[in-house]
Amino acid sequence: MNPDLTKQLKQQVGLAAAQRVTSGMVVGLGTGSTAAFAIAELGRRLGTGELQNIRGIPTSFQASVLAKKHGVPLMTLDDLGDTEEIHVAIDGADEVDPVKNLIKGGGAAHTREKVVDSLAREFIVVVDSSKLVEKLGSTFPVPLEVLPMAVTPVTRAVKALGGEPELRMGVKKDGPVITDQGNMVLDVKFADIPDPAGLEKTLNNLPGVVENGLFVGVAHTILVGEVVAGVPQVREIL
Amino acid sequence: MNPDLTKQLKQQVGLAAAQRVTSGMVVGLGTGSTAAFAIAELGRRLGTGELQNIRGIPTSFQASVLAKKHGVPLMTLDDLGDTEEIHVAIDGADEVDPVKNLIKGGGAAHTREKVVDSLAREFIVVVDSSKLVEKLGSTFPVPLEVLPMAVTPVTRAVKALGGEPELRMGVKKDGPVITDQGNMVLDVKFADIPDPAGLEKTLNNLPGVVENGLFVGVAHTILVGEVVAGVPQVREIL
Repeated sequence: MNPDLTKQLKQQVGLAAAQRVTSGMVVGLGTGSTAAFAIAELGRRLGTGELQNIRGIPTSFQASVLAKKHGVPLMTLDDLGDTEEIHVAIDGADEVDPVKNLIKGGGAAHTREKVVDSLAREFIVVVDSSKLVEKLGSTFPVPLEVLPMAVTPVTRAVKALGGEPELRMGVKKDGPVITDQGNMVLDVKFADIPDPAGLEKTLNNLPGVVENGLFVGVAHTILVGEVVAGVPQVREIL
Repeated sequence: MNPDLTKQLKQQVGLAAAQRVTSGMVVGLGTGSTAAFAIAELGRRLGTGELQNIRGIPTSFQASVLAKKHGVPLMTLDDLGDTEEIHVAIDGADEVDPVKNLIKGGGAAHTREKVVDSLAREFIVVVDSSKLVEKLGSTFPVPLEVLPMAVTPVTRAVKALGGEPELRMGVKKDGPVITDQGNMVLDVKFADIPDPAGLEKTLNNLPGVVENGLFVGVAHTILVGEVVAGVPQVREIL
């Protein structure tokens, strides 16, 4: 697909998600290029007065910066009262399978994303159709956020589980990528993931692993941007 | 027990563990007052020449400082060659049950401790007899290391699991304790822990939890300092 069309799809699906936010809502603000369009649209709707009194909880430094740029008021999870909740979270994904399980973490933000997205009454995933897969792990490795001191033993441990780990290296930064929390990322390719729920727990139980990018049973709604007969459209998978 | 006798027990058991280290070994260096005696004894034995060419892998900033003070050479897990291993780890515990499962984390170091201790061919736990319990959770809560941004939702999640969480507050530091990794600690009291292995995984799978203090199936040898007929002794539970 040409880059302009991909961008158009991301924008349309981000806009569609932002349209579902109504006044007074607490909104989980996702990370990545598609979620960024949703944040921009929330700001636009606030600016016209069409939307009022929403508060965003960012999933990353990037989401926080974009929210400020577009005038979306921010809060933290600590500001959430005992009876309050996150009404909607809008976030991207690297893979989506037919039962709405995800792989996330291409932007190294999956740890905070999982904290926020898993708290939402409705977690809306925004993707273009290239992210839909029959089986998780087909096109994308599982990212693990790992404490720097534990990268070597975790590398060995995931090899023992049948994975092929690769330390994610920086671009515009020498050496490894460092997350917003100061940790490193191992991208682990698995030939097959027969039990995503089991693998998610097994990986999180490895000493030194902060969080992994398998999101099992977290997403409620998938919005897919796709080209039908040459025209970009948004389809909803309920 | 009077404080002098407790100190004597800790010292004796720390010494007994250090005696098991032989020349050429890679040694996991634990955290806390009992492990500190073991590190001091390793340094003493290196000083006399009785022990040669050992290398320590510290489980905390404290262990690293003590090792330097007592002249124990240090290495990191990254220095460990593909065919090398940690021969012995020596570390304390807050509770030890009859099948050698532990609760650790009273010193807020359980995350790095679990990384190192779980890699050892023999993990020797050094405790005084007050740490022996029939069931885990009887006297000590389960410490969770938690990302600061996730303290509120993790607090709610552990309540939903039946736990009573308390944010660990600093002494000689206003506000919460901050770990060597920059995170916070929730101490969670459970009325009963029928399935420690299951709870360990469940807690580690909560978004925002870096690691918890349940060590299931990690310890090999327990050295217990106890007073028998008024005399401090060390007993081994194999």
